[in-house]
Amino acid sequence: MSITETPVRLPIPPLPKGFRVAGAHAGLKRNPTREDISLVVSDLPATAAGVYTTNLVFAAPVAFDRARTPGTGFRAVAINSGNANACTGARGLDDAAAMASAAAASLAVPEAGVLVLSTGIIGEFLPLGKIKAGIEIVAGRLGTDADAVVTAARGMMTTDTRPKLSGSSFQAAGVAHTLFGMAKGAAMVGPRMATMLGVILTDAALAPADAQRLLGEATEQTFNCVSVDGHTSTNDTVLLLANGAAGGTPLTGKGLEAFGQALVDACEALAREIADDGEGATHVLRVEVSGCRTRDDARQIARTVADSPLVKTAIHGADPNWGRIVSAAGYSGVAFDPDKLVLRLNGTLLFEHGQPVPFDADRVSESIKAARETLIELAVHAGPASIRFYSSDLTAEYVHLNADYHT
Amino acid sequence: MSITETPVRLPIPPLPKGFRVAGAHAGLKRNPTREDISLVVSDLPATAAGVYTTNLVFAAPVAFDRARTPGTGFRAVAINSGNANACTGARGLDDAAAMASAAAASLAVPEAGVLVLSTGIIGEFLPLGKIKAGIEIVAGRLGTDADAVVTAARGMMTTDTRPKLSGSSFQAAGVAHTLFGMAKGAAMVGPRMATMLGVILTDAALAPADAQRLLGEATEQTFNCVSVDGHTSTNDTVLLLANGAAGGTPLTGKGLEAFGQALVDACEALAREIADDGEGATHVLRVEVSGCRTRDDARQIARTVADSPLVKTAIHGADPNWGRIVSAAGYSGVAFDPDKLVLRLNGTLLFEHGQPVPFDADRVSESIKAARETLIELAVHAGPASIRFYSSDLTAEYVHLNADYHT
Repeated sequence: MSITETPVRLPIPPLPKGFRVAGAHAGLKRNPTREDISLVVSDLPATAAGVYTTNLVFAAPVAFDRARTPGTGFRAVAINSGNANACTGARGLDDAAAMASAAAASLAVPEAGVLVLSTGIIGEFLPLGKIKAGIEIVAGRLGTDADAVVTAARGMMTTDTRPKLSGSSFQAAGVAHTLFGMAKGAAMVGPRMATMLGVILTDAALAPADAQRLLGEATEQTFNCVSVDGHTSTNDTVLLLANGAAGGTPLTGKGLEAFGQALVDACEALAREIADDGEGATHVLRVEVSGCRTRDDARQIARTVADSPLVKTAIHGADPNWGRIVSAAGYSGVAFDPDKLVLRLNGTLLFEHGQPVPFDADRVSESIKAARETLIELAVHAGPASIRFYSSDLTAEYVHLNADYHT
Repeated sequence: MSITETPVRLPIPPLPKGFRVAGAHAGLKRNPTREDISLVVSDLPATAAGVYTTNLVFAAPVAFDRARTPGTGFRAVAINSGNANACTGARGLDDAAAMASAAAASLAVPEAGVLVLSTGIIGEFLPLGKIKAGIEIVAGRLGTDADAVVTAARGMMTTDTRPKLSGSSFQAAGVAHTLFGMAKGAAMVGPRMATMLGVILTDAALAPADAQRLLGEATEQTFNCVSVDGHTSTNDTVLLLANGAAGGTPLTGKGLEAFGQALVDACEALAREIADDGEGATHVLRVEVSGCRTRDDARQIARTVADSPLVKTAIHGADPNWGRIVSAAGYSGVAFDPDKLVLRLNGTLLFEHGQPVPFDADRVSESIKAARETLIELAVHAGPASIRFYSSDLTAEYVHLNADYHT
């Protein structure tokens, strides 16, 4: 496996008040320049919510965190990459608890206030010695500057080429609040879940039930609308920590609404980043499906188009091969009238009334080559529901990365 | 697009009595050494049955044949490659009928006795002039020898590297019968249908209802258990023609049963050939899922494993990456207990009781490298149902072929 790193996208979003982070190399990854342990620490007890993979085969840290969230009193998230602690049975559960205990001891916080995230190879036991030593190192480096943020985000990366960060601010109850997100994910990214790992931090105060509901709603619109290869991971987790450091009581009404919108924005930016950094990707596919009876119908059509290897390779080849797109919609399992289907590619009409439409194929091909993002718009004309779905193209580089990423 | 042809697999199975075939180049494909028109002619009126794509976006020849089968009195199938006559609206339906009329005129058979098959580019109108001229040429070359059979089978190929043929013989009502099959398919091959194009010929006499039922049953066990890229085509069709030239009345009882078994054998051989010739494939994946509550559950798990790009690239890389296989089963949508799941790869136990099992990874990797076929066995321990499913690995060559196969 050889991943070419790309620079982190600037600017680095600021951390919300009362959070400190860091990452370090602890020897789980072979390359000593790659961070593999991170800590996220809240100086105040925080409300935490979580959304987790729907895969029946879920990892030990998923089981550990799912039992604890939503809730209050959280002080830290301990994160490792290089090892997923998945398919590791009862010992895996013990190891996840041991990782949380090690973080609690290093940070002098209650063990019940720690959550854990792991990502990497499936089916190997956590190297607890390295993880404990790494946590000790990271605990001594916690900070709030760009370097702290970037090393923390890098500590959750596997085949990602760059950290994925997003931030936003919002006014609620007359107070300025900050929201920060970081995520990882470049393959084994499929829909039907909270894709891969994500940590969202805010200095807003939130009731646990509100945090959980809004995180679920944001995930449905963002992380559940992204796919690189359709393969739902064992470890997908998105955590939200809200520590109230901006002051005030838990948000309600308009303030809660403002937070919810900022949360969707931060999650959507991370979701798009995951598709953009899809393994080997040369294009982001933005699939917009409209006019469906239900949002689930729209998602199912979008997912089928976005996951079709034939559509993904056509976009890689800058080929306006609309037959592949229309036929993918046709086998999605959603009932619709093909004669009412309308397809536009980068804004150009390619198909309607069940028939080909004359268009300038060279010009559309050039438009695909010219931009990182390709826009596929499918109008179904059967109802009011729509969806936006992100994916990436399929390249020989994806195959090389995954044929050579050995267990 | 550049396809490297490979030799046809020997021996060439014999045609059943009373059938003649041929293929020729008529200018639909650019390369003049590639046949693109074929005819299958029965000297006696034959019973015909058909199984068709479940894609909502289905091609004109599918609509044409579906309206005529099952039935009796069939004399010919006219086939073209290079153009799928799909997404071509009302004009496409007229063109399919014109193709059938041209074959009827050239062969001096009733127009109602002709079926049509098309495969190739979606969304372009059939070049009827070339097709009519080609049919005229092929009608003058009909024969029963190996050359006639191979050119007929090549006339239905698109990115296939070789013709796919199968044959079997069986005794029924004291008479020896012959069964012959030919198929095409190398991409846009997904389950939930009769995969791609197939024509099965027999000199047995069959009632239309029996022909239809047995073809459906055989398809369910064979063509519906193969996938190259999970993309269900607009043109998938399998036709069965039974002309009774072996003599006797329509088969019943034990004779019909013998025919049914021969049909399954012939279809399975063709289905496996399609996976084997999957675009860019270096391995055939044979996924055997057992112990499911229902056969649909088993198919769903097998299909999810077989279509996962991560599983397909792992096999290409000769990597016994069982985490990818187990996690694919986990997101298949079928409910099962992961702690009861048992995985074997090429006969070696890799996973059981929810935990990794020590195994010799180098030896398993060598076994993948040493054989064209890789056997993935998943035992679910939830019930009596099982399935065998064929797929192919995912290679950089698949990406090259499909990124460069321009509309």
